[in-house]
Amino acid sequence: MKRYVLALLIGLLPAVAGAQANPAAQAARSWRQQHERAIVDEFVTLLSIPNIARDREDIQRNAEAIAAMMAKRGLAPKLVSVPGGNPIVFGEIRTPGATRTLAFYAHYDGQPLDAKEWASPPFVPTLRDKPTEDGGQVIPLPPVGATFDPEWRLYARGAADDKAPVIALMTAVDAIRAAGMTFRANIKFAFEGEEEAGSVNLERTLAANKDLFAADLWLMCDAPLYQTRQQSIIFGARGVTQVDITVYGPRAELHSGHYGNWAPNPAMSLARLLTSMKDDKGRVLVEGFYDDVEPLGPVEKRALAEAPAIGTDLMRQFWLGSTDGGPLTLNELITVPSLNIRGMTSSRTGAQASNVIPASATVSIDIRMVKGMDGRKTGQQITDHIRTQGFFVVDREPTADERRAHPKVAKVVVVRTGAGSRTPMDLPISQEVIRTVESVRGRAVKLPTMGGGLPLAQVERPLGTRTIVIPMGNHDNNQHSSDENLRIQNLWDGIELMAALLTM
Amino acid sequence: MKRYVLALLIGLLPAVAGAQANPAAQAARSWRQQHERAIVDEFVTLLSIPNIARDREDIQRNAEAIAAMMAKRGLAPKLVSVPGGNPIVFGEIRTPGATRTLAFYAHYDGQPLDAKEWASPPFVPTLRDKPTEDGGQVIPLPPVGATFDPEWRLYARGAADDKAPVIALMTAVDAIRAAGMTFRANIKFAFEGEEEAGSVNLERTLAANKDLFAADLWLMCDAPLYQTRQQSIIFGARGVTQVDITVYGPRAELHSGHYGNWAPNPAMSLARLLTSMKDDKGRVLVEGFYDDVEPLGPVEKRALAEAPAIGTDLMRQFWLGSTDGGPLTLNELITVPSLNIRGMTSSRTGAQASNVIPASATVSIDIRMVKGMDGRKTGQQITDHIRTQGFFVVDREPTADERRAHPKVAKVVVVRTGAGSRTPMDLPISQEVIRTVESVRGRAVKLPTMGGGLPLAQVERPLGTRTIVIPMGNHDNNQHSSDENLRIQNLWDGIELMAALLTM
Repeated sequence: MKRYVLALLIGLLPAVAGAQANPAAQAARSWRQQHERAIVDEFVTLLSIPNIARDREDIQRNAEAIAAMMAKRGLAPKLVSVPGGNPIVFGEIRTPGATRTLAFYAHYDGQPLDAKEWASPPFVPTLRDKPTEDGGQVIPLPPVGATFDPEWRLYARGAADDKAPVIALMTAVDAIRAAGMTFRANIKFAFEGEEEAGSVNLERTLAANKDLFAADLWLMCDAPLYQTRQQSIIFGARGVTQVDITVYGPRAELHSGHYGNWAPNPAMSLARLLTSMKDDKGRVLVEGFYDDVEPLGPVEKRALAEAPAIGTDLMRQFWLGSTDGGPLTLNELITVPSLNIRGMTSSRTGAQASNVIPASATVSIDIRMVKGMDGRKTGQQITDHIRTQGFFVVDREPTADERRAHPKVAKVVVVRTGAGSRTPMDLPISQEVIRTVESVRGRAVKLPTMGGGLPLAQVERPLGTRTIVIPMGNHDNNQHSSDENLRIQNLWDGIELMAALLTM
Repeated sequence: MKRYVLALLIGLLPAVAGAQANPAAQAARSWRQQHERAIVDEFVTLLSIPNIARDREDIQRNAEAIAAMMAKRGLAPKLVSVPGGNPIVFGEIRTPGATRTLAFYAHYDGQPLDAKEWASPPFVPTLRDKPTEDGGQVIPLPPVGATFDPEWRLYARGAADDKAPVIALMTAVDAIRAAGMTFRANIKFAFEGEEEAGSVNLERTLAANKDLFAADLWLMCDAPLYQTRQQSIIFGARGVTQVDITVYGPRAELHSGHYGNWAPNPAMSLARLLTSMKDDKGRVLVEGFYDDVEPLGPVEKRALAEAPAIGTDLMRQFWLGSTDGGPLTLNELITVPSLNIRGMTSSRTGAQASNVIPASATVSIDIRMVKGMDGRKTGQQITDHIRTQGFFVVDREPTADERRAHPKVAKVVVVRTGAGSRTPMDLPISQEVIRTVESVRGRAVKLPTMGGGLPLAQVERPLGTRTIVIPMGNHDNNQHSSDENLRIQNLWDGIELMAALLTM
């Protein structure tokens, strides 16, 4: 796997070699080289605190730990929340004479998980010499003063997504101060605690504290680097709308011998419904799905054309023999909306399976929305589509009489709705961010939007500000899955990048 | 639910009233009325032993417990097995001057289960005053000498399927002897320990012990009564062929934002494959699937026409608003082969779900075979069908290179293959069984085949004998699912029925 990445990297070497033109980044490198173990120790401590958004006590412990990290650095931390929401950890640096304010966003909560699927417990941060997929072995942390191999990886939920920027930012503040350098802008930090739960309270929390969170630009520190390991700068994100669907068979599981051929099978019914939603090229067949998509402008189209082609290498890396959506490329495909099956269950498979007709079948779908689309409208289009397939639709458990009265019954719950967002690449502030990033990290890949769903719209709407996404994690970090990890070099690079942006 | 059953029962009352013309059955009733608590106690003891076929130590404990029950009654028990197989518990009664031998088959293993889905632990037999679905409450066993309400139900894995006939047969032997009555035939008992695992060793075990198991007729005591609560006699069974299919997406789960629209989704691919296997009326579209089906003869067709119509009532009971296979009735549909999804999984749903493209999707399918079909051939037809849908097919985990080389890859494992079987209804021995059963239980429903998969062919082939299925469980016993139960009156009726057949 590694050789395909390396083949791509060779083309980048000249750009990377000239990257250390930024004095704050140079100071950060020097500081890091003298404190590698201490930096990783602080990271390990933070990663040891479980961080699933629904586990409120764990979330509170994370927030307090981050506030303590800020307090140690004199960043005047506050936990800011609305009733029912997880706290945003806020901190700031007031700079005398500053004419603008930069806000740095990250999130400290992580995706839900099944610990059984992990090679080591997700909240016992574990260092490995290589990726688990390549046979990586667990190794102890090197002693204070020793150097970390940059290809080692730290495994834990949140290692990449998205506690790494928290550590990188705090370390960069230490490095800037130790070098006697000064900040030019007012700096704010806002670390969210429920991004993976859909940032459901972010907009309300910001709206209720507009002055506290006001900034000229929010730098959204999240997401992985480009798949060639090149630095990327991303000017938009897709929003997520999630729809959970359950279709029904018999009241309870029935013996498949006595009733097979006669009692309708809900798994087959679900398969038919899902098949009706997309054609075999991956195009969504739900009526109106693409109607409101705002097309890309010429600047964005040019940036896309300049981004290195990665599809073929990723196919090898991901063991794929085909892709959906051709002839469009991956970069083009993430600028249009998607409909994806997150998971599907009906009765049991494997050793727990038995000869039954299942009582129900459930699918969870996520739809990625691009600029122009409205999640509520799309959720309604999905519901309407299910009706056109002959289903009686309810949004809660159907009653016995409802199930008897209709040939096909579906429970459809639009769990959350989102919106896409895009900041124009030709704004002066956009161009300044590009110059600063490239002064540290060499020529960057500029993308009009990322595929993932950061809460850009939830920041822009209440504050009337702009957002730009600054990634630092390795692209093969297994985020949202088991064995999430951060490559050590990505942490080092991230510290330098944050130092440059903090002194912009 | 109960009122629909009662409406049907009213029409049967005259037949039931005249049922007690059989002296052995009368003796069994009298014995049972004096020993209700002791009979249920012996049943509870047997049901307390976990009985999943793959758990060898549990199976051995069951076999030894049943052998002890036989030894107590002087039935000369033996545990008979082939290497790797679970023991058949054999017992016999040699009758001086007997001119024929009757064998009584049951099985003591039960379907695999998920204990979390049960209202009470599956191996803690629990008495309830009504079905759990109707709000049944747990009640203690009544004291010795008190009478059981016939509508109470005993909950445990195996209560209906298929430890009930073991208890009924042993109790019937007690009753016949206590009444000073004699047997006319040689009697053999053969209680299998891996029927729910596909009876994979039954044929070999019988073939290796032909003399021991030889009989003129095997009465297969398994399956539920007809859905009107009428006694049924069933002359055949469908065989099961099980096919497990896994289709593949990316090597590991991928973030659905970064790769959604591009990385193929295996759950969607599986949905498309499943949809290709059946039309929306439930007819199987796999080429050649119906080619070898042996059609019913006129006697079987007449018996089917005489069986009470039950579809409408079952639809209400099972909360169904439609059925597959129309205009054929349930009884007609179980005489043709079926293809059923037992379970389907891909990644996770509910609280454990996350925003990923799953790495694989798995389905387990069971195919019910009728007389004339060969499971191996059908398994091959399924595999061929999957190939025609564009899949590269392997029978073990595909390699990375195989997954890269083919647009679509499926692992297809034909887990087991079966065959259907039918004994002609007009044989003299068939007619004698009908007369005996009807002398106890009134007019019976005679069915050419059951829908379920008893190992009739596996008995007939090695021994050259005939098989007839004699059910005794309630039809709403939740067999193969959670909350399996036996209605107490079905146990009482079963004891009388077995007494009549034992003295045939």
